[in-house]
Amino acid sequence: METLKIVKIGGNIIDDSKALDAFLEQFSRMESPKLLVHGGGKLASQLAQKMEVEVKMVQGRRITDAETLDIITMVYGGKINKNIVAKLQSLSCNAIGFTGADGNTIVSVKRPVKDIDYGFVGDVETVNTEILELLMGQDIAPIFCAITHDSQGSLLNTNADTIASELAIGFAEKYNVELYYCFEKNGVLRDVNDDDSVIETITEPIYQNLLSEGIIADGMLPKLNNCFHAINKNVTKVCIGKPNMLTQATTKFTTITK
Amino acid sequence: METLKIVKIGGNIIDDSKALDAFLEQFSRMESPKLLVHGGGKLASQLAQKMEVEVKMVQGRRITDAETLDIITMVYGGKINKNIVAKLQSLSCNAIGFTGADGNTIVSVKRPVKDIDYGFVGDVETVNTEILELLMGQDIAPIFCAITHDSQGSLLNTNADTIASELAIGFAEKYNVELYYCFEKNGVLRDVNDDDSVIETITEPIYQNLLSEGIIADGMLPKLNNCFHAINKNVTKVCIGKPNMLTQATTKFTTITK
Repeated sequence: METLKIVKIGGNIIDDSKALDAFLEQFSRMESPKLLVHGGGKLASQLAQKMEVEVKMVQGRRITDAETLDIITMVYGGKINKNIVAKLQSLSCNAIGFTGADGNTIVSVKRPVKDIDYGFVGDVETVNTEILELLMGQDIAPIFCAITHDSQGSLLNTNADTIASELAIGFAEKYNVELYYCFEKNGVLRDVNDDDSVIETITEPIYQNLLSEGIIADGMLPKLNNCFHAINKNVTKVCIGKPNMLTQATTKFTTITK
Repeated sequence: METLKIVKIGGNIIDDSKALDAFLEQFSRMESPKLLVHGGGKLASQLAQKMEVEVKMVQGRRITDAETLDIITMVYGGKINKNIVAKLQSLSCNAIGFTGADGNTIVSVKRPVKDIDYGFVGDVETVNTEILELLMGQDIAPIFCAITHDSQGSLLNTNADTIASELAIGFAEKYNVELYYCFEKNGVLRDVNDDDSVIETITEPIYQNLLSEGIIADGMLPKLNNCFHAINKNVTKVCIGKPNMLTQATTKFTTITK
C-alpha cells in the first residue's frame, strides 16, 4: 500500500509566522500523497476581542455560539487556511483548502446538550475520502481547518487533533497512514520540564504504565487518546514532536505503535 | 459538447438571506456540470467598520491594503463561501469552495501602479481548469469567491464579474459554456426606471447602437464589457437578469450573443 502522511500543526506554529513559513517549506518538500490539518491559534480570540464578542467559558471550556462560529469560520476557514494554500502554491506544492463541508468530506453531529451546551461544536460521524483520494492522486495536498458540517446547513467547530485522527482512520483501508502531531515540544516527556526526556516509543502497555505513574496528564491525555484511537483503527503509526521530525532531521520524537 | 453553466451572484443576493436561500435552492436543482461565483456584499465593509479598519478610497475606487485583504479573505473566502457550501450540502448538492489559490485555479498579477496604487488587487492572467473539470465530472460544483493569487504567496482581491468571465473563457474549449450574471434587475434595461423595459437580445452591433444612444452607462458598462469579452472568446451565450432566469421561470432577461 502507498504511504499517506497526515500532518497536524497546532496554534503555536500558526501564531509564529517564521515557524509557519519554515514548516510549510518542509511540508512542500514532502512526497505526495500528503494532507495537512491546522489548528487556529490566538487569531480567533484576537478578532473576537476586536469585535467585542465575549469569549464564553463554562467549566473551563469555550462555548461556540453563533458569533464565535462566524469568527472561527472567518479566521480558520478564511484567513489562515487560504494564506497557507497561497504560500504552498508559491512553494510549488499544489493544495486545496477544505472544511468538512467542502466535498462533504467530514460530517459531524452537533454535540448533544447534557450538563453543558457547547453550542456549535461537532463530533465527527462520517469521513468521506473518495474526493480527497482523487485530488491526492493529482499531487494535490488537501489542507483542512478545524471545521466540519452537520449535513443540514450548519458548520460546526471541531477539535483539530480529532479531525486529524478521524481522517487518518478514514484513509487506513486504502493507505499505509502515518499521522504526525507537530507541537512545541520534542514529544511525550517523562519530565515536562526537560525537553530531552522524550519517551521514544509508546505502546498500549507502556501507555497504561505511564498513566498509572501519573506521567501523562493535562493536554497530553486527550492527544494520546486520539493517537491510540487511530492506532486501534489500523493507522500504521502516530508520531508526536517538533515539525523537524518530518524530515528525519531529529530522532527525538515519540512514536506510538501497536 | 457538454453544456457548463457558470452562475455569478452579486452582493444584493449575498446580503439578503432569504434571496440567497432561494437562489441556492435553485442552483442545487440545476444539472451538473455547474459552477458558482459569488461577490461579497456589505459584510466586508461592516466587518471593517467593527474592526475600525478605515475604508480607503482614491478617485471613488476602493483600495485593498493588507488589512482590507485580510478582511476580504475572512469574509469572502471564509464566512460567505463556507456557509454557501454547507447550505448546498444540505440541499444534496456536493460543492467545494475555491479561491484562485486553491488548486492553482486562477493566477493573477498585482495591478501595476500607474496613477493609483490599488493595493492587493489582481488582474487575471491564467485559468487552470483541469482540477475543476475532474471535480465537476464527479458532480461537484466549484464555488468561487472573488479572490485569486499571484503564485508568489499573496492572495489578491479580484472583481467577481471578471472571475466569472475568465473562468467561462477558460472552459470554452472543453464545454459549451453558458454564463449567467444574476443581479437585482430583469436585465439590461432601455429605461433604468422601468424593470419591464428589458432588452432581450444584445449583439455587438446592437451594443454599439445602445452605447451611442447613451443607454448603457455606469455599472452596466464594465459588466457588458465582461460579457462581450467572453462572447468573443467562444463562450456560447451570456445572460443577465434575476436568478429566476436560471429555471426558465421568466422569459424576461437579456441574452448576449455573437
